Amino acid sequence: MTIILLSGGSGERLWPLSNDVRSKQFIKLFKDNKGDYESMVQRVYRQITEVDPEAKVTIATSKSQASAIHNQLGDKVSICVEPCRRDTFPAILLAAAYLHDELDVGLDEPIAVCPVDPYVENSYYECVEKLEETVKQGTANLTLMGIEPTYPSEKYGYIIPESDGEVSNVKEFKEKPDRATAEVYLKQKALWNAGVFAFRLGYLIDKAHSMVDFTDYRDLYSKYETLTKISFDYVVVEKEPSIQVVRYSGSWKDVGTWNMMAEVMSDNIKGKAVMDESCENTQIINELNVPILAMGCKDMVIAASGDGILVSDKERSGYMKPFVEKISTDVMFAEKSWGTYTVMDVQHGSMTVKVSIRAGEHMSYHSHDYREEVWTVISGKGKATLDGKEQLLQTGDVITIPAGCKHMVEAETNLDIIEVQIGESISVDDKKKFKIEK
Amino acid sequence: MTIILLSGGSGERLWPLSNDVRSKQFIKLFKDNKGDYESMVQRVYRQITEVDPEAKVTIATSKSQASAIHNQLGDKVSICVEPCRRDTFPAILLAAAYLHDELDVGLDEPIAVCPVDPYVENSYYECVEKLEETVKQGTANLTLMGIEPTYPSEKYGYIIPESDGEVSNVKEFKEKPDRATAEVYLKQKALWNAGVFAFRLGYLIDKAHSMVDFTDYRDLYSKYETLTKISFDYVVVEKEPSIQVVRYSGSWKDVGTWNMMAEVMSDNIKGKAVMDESCENTQIINELNVPILAMGCKDMVIAASGDGILVSDKERSGYMKPFVEKISTDVMFAEKSWGTYTVMDVQHGSMTVKVSIRAGEHMSYHSHDYREEVWTVISGKGKATLDGKEQLLQTGDVITIPAGCKHMVEAETNLDIIEVQIGESISVDDKKKFKIEK
Repeated sequence: MTIILLSGGSGERLWPLSNDVRSKQFIKLFKDNKGDYESMVQRVYRQITEVDPEAKVTIATSKSQASAIHNQLGDKVSICVEPCRRDTFPAILLAAAYLHDELDVGLDEPIAVCPVDPYVENSYYECVEKLEETVKQGTANLTLMGIEPTYPSEKYGYIIPESDGEVSNVKEFKEKPDRATAEVYLKQKALWNAGVFAFRLGYLIDKAHSMVDFTDYRDLYSKYETLTKISFDYVVVEKEPSIQVVRYSGSWKDVGTWNMMAEVMSDNIKGKAVMDESCENTQIINELNVPILAMGCKDMVIAASGDGILVSDKERSGYMKPFVEKISTDVMFAEKSWGTYTVMDVQHGSMTVKVSIRAGEHMSYHSHDYREEVWTVISGKGKATLDGKEQLLQTGDVITIPAGCKHMVEAETNLDIIEVQIGESISVDDKKKFKIEK
Repeated sequence: MTIILLSGGSGERLWPLSNDVRSKQFIKLFKDNKGDYESMVQRVYRQITEVDPEAKVTIATSKSQASAIHNQLGDKVSICVEPCRRDTFPAILLAAAYLHDELDVGLDEPIAVCPVDPYVENSYYECVEKLEETVKQGTANLTLMGIEPTYPSEKYGYIIPESDGEVSNVKEFKEKPDRATAEVYLKQKALWNAGVFAFRLGYLIDKAHSMVDFTDYRDLYSKYETLTKISFDYVVVEKEPSIQVVRYSGSWKDVGTWNMMAEVMSDNIKGKAVMDESCENTQIINELNVPILAMGCKDMVIAASGDGILVSDKERSGYMKPFVEKISTDVMFAEKSWGTYTVMDVQHGSMTVKVSIRAGEHMSYHSHDYREEVWTVISGKGKATLDGKEQLLQTGDVITIPAGCKHMVEAETNLDIIEVQIGESISVDDKKKFKIEK
């Protein structure tokens, strides 16, 4: 299988565990076969390779997610980074060009495009395999996955198939209906449109050339910002007369809200927390160091991170977006390509951060114009470079980095540092990057 | 008025805002006349001095509370510190000896002893004044306050008076009854025993001399540890035939649990928090830097501090003690005589703390055998003393304190420091104190 996973949307619906830099697909609330916690992106990758150990997976994503993907999946997947957000058609086109020009995937190869966030069984990826087989048979230009509905939902678009066979031609598409209309669709054996498409790579590249003036992946990348924001559904699916659909009848859950996430997470408690015996149907996720005690909580979700604490009735949690926007805190935790960054204290004129760098990794070589930094190593070994001079680091070492000093740290072992930033104007924008001088 | 306030019990019932070093009477959840937050101990002191601006207040307490009292009330009150905990009779006796021998209070002066924690109206302290007037009239050896019951409670002891006058002789005392018995008491015009006593100072000193071999306050202090743990009720009240009671009919609330505290706190939200419109009868107290979002919470109390986060149904919150004991975290926040101490990060081999010292204050001169410390000043000015050498401190300064180095800091302005402790065995017990070398 060759799969493009669309990893988008940051969003507030799983606040405080998701934020502008950490999307919901990176939160580790599930468990793998060994019982270790895994995120949605890790789960999806595991499921794909359980179904097809030879699967080629490319993740189409934004710059802000590339580090988290690299942290969670290492070099096992290719990452196609959009220079800016341009909706699904440009994103899928960029990934298709990337597959062809950078990974040498042939124009006749079947490609499947899947969202990264549904919570499904492995048979979902067997169905994706079936989509690709259907593409190979050449009986249609485009093949979609159709989810067998479990209730007349108003939340999804519907596909009306010509027959109720496993593979069928598509008769028509329907926008999100009201409940009564959805009930009529269900009687017609309609399917939910899951946003999974498969096609010959050449199909999309050819189609794109008729719409966008570009030569290859790099050319497309360089003019990406000029592309129109337009969805794959609108520009491809709705205009294509030759479409088939493959039925998927296994479980499929949209875990985009706490209400649904709480239903599928592996444990009722993750992190330091205690519930008394009078709690019912309640889940707690605690990423903070301090314990949570829940007493007499019914149908609630409690989630705590460096960004904030949510205490919500499950049903109500679907309505949190405007409140989260109102709260709009600075990001207190970030996953970087080299490790993690946790803000511990902020006051006027200073910020204190815990920096954890994984063994073998290093941050970029950079400087700040408006702040000095004091770094105290609290565990591990590594090497600092300060204005070109190298210095070994070990537990207890302190280095002072004046404003303007170029600096970086490489971790020999896992390395934890307390970084105290001092300056009248502390901002993430106060950063200049440099190449390392040799 | 001369008043001894008994400030005892740390306790877990208002966890996570109260802990082993911060008792509930120091949590600032009420508001003074200007709208500023005040704690119970500040409220009580304010109320006493509103009723009698000349009142002499002595707080009988343990070592662990002395700093918090000093922080919150300054030099306005005398503090009589028990060398160790020995129940109410030794504590009241020590305070009585302190009044006589250290504050020169005459043996004929009336003294009132009050608990520090009930939430009352100012008329309560007018009643205390009435108790002292009754003592002056010499019609009984001991005068008690009786609270007019609002319901047949099983939680309090009862006083059966001889009459229903404002001042009456006491007929008998009754232990905490069951509800049916309490209803019978109410028909007899019984009063709740509020633990407020007044007597001639000489009465108690004389009584004590017949039971304990001591000469004066300092002698009593030195042998305090040898005294029997015994309550004032048991050894004085129950054996005294000549007792009067003064009725108090104003409001009186025991705010020892979150359920009651939530009822009387000034605002539904204290600290960074947002409630959606579907929350009902819910209070949030947030001492953390991160915001709390509550949605659809009914009849709940949410309290967060550096020690932990409580999310509880109000009714259930009365049953939290065993859970809090199970959680038993290290204390993450402490109020010191010189300011505050907040633990920000703990990992094996290190602890990171934010130390805030008030202008003009200084910590003790001390050293640690098993850890080094790196201090970075993040705001303010002061002076450090390291092995006898003085050094001025200002924002951005870093000092490194090796194990064994004697050190202290004095704050010229309010001074904030990030302190990184590094060592294999970090413990509060690793501290030697020294006199400052001049």
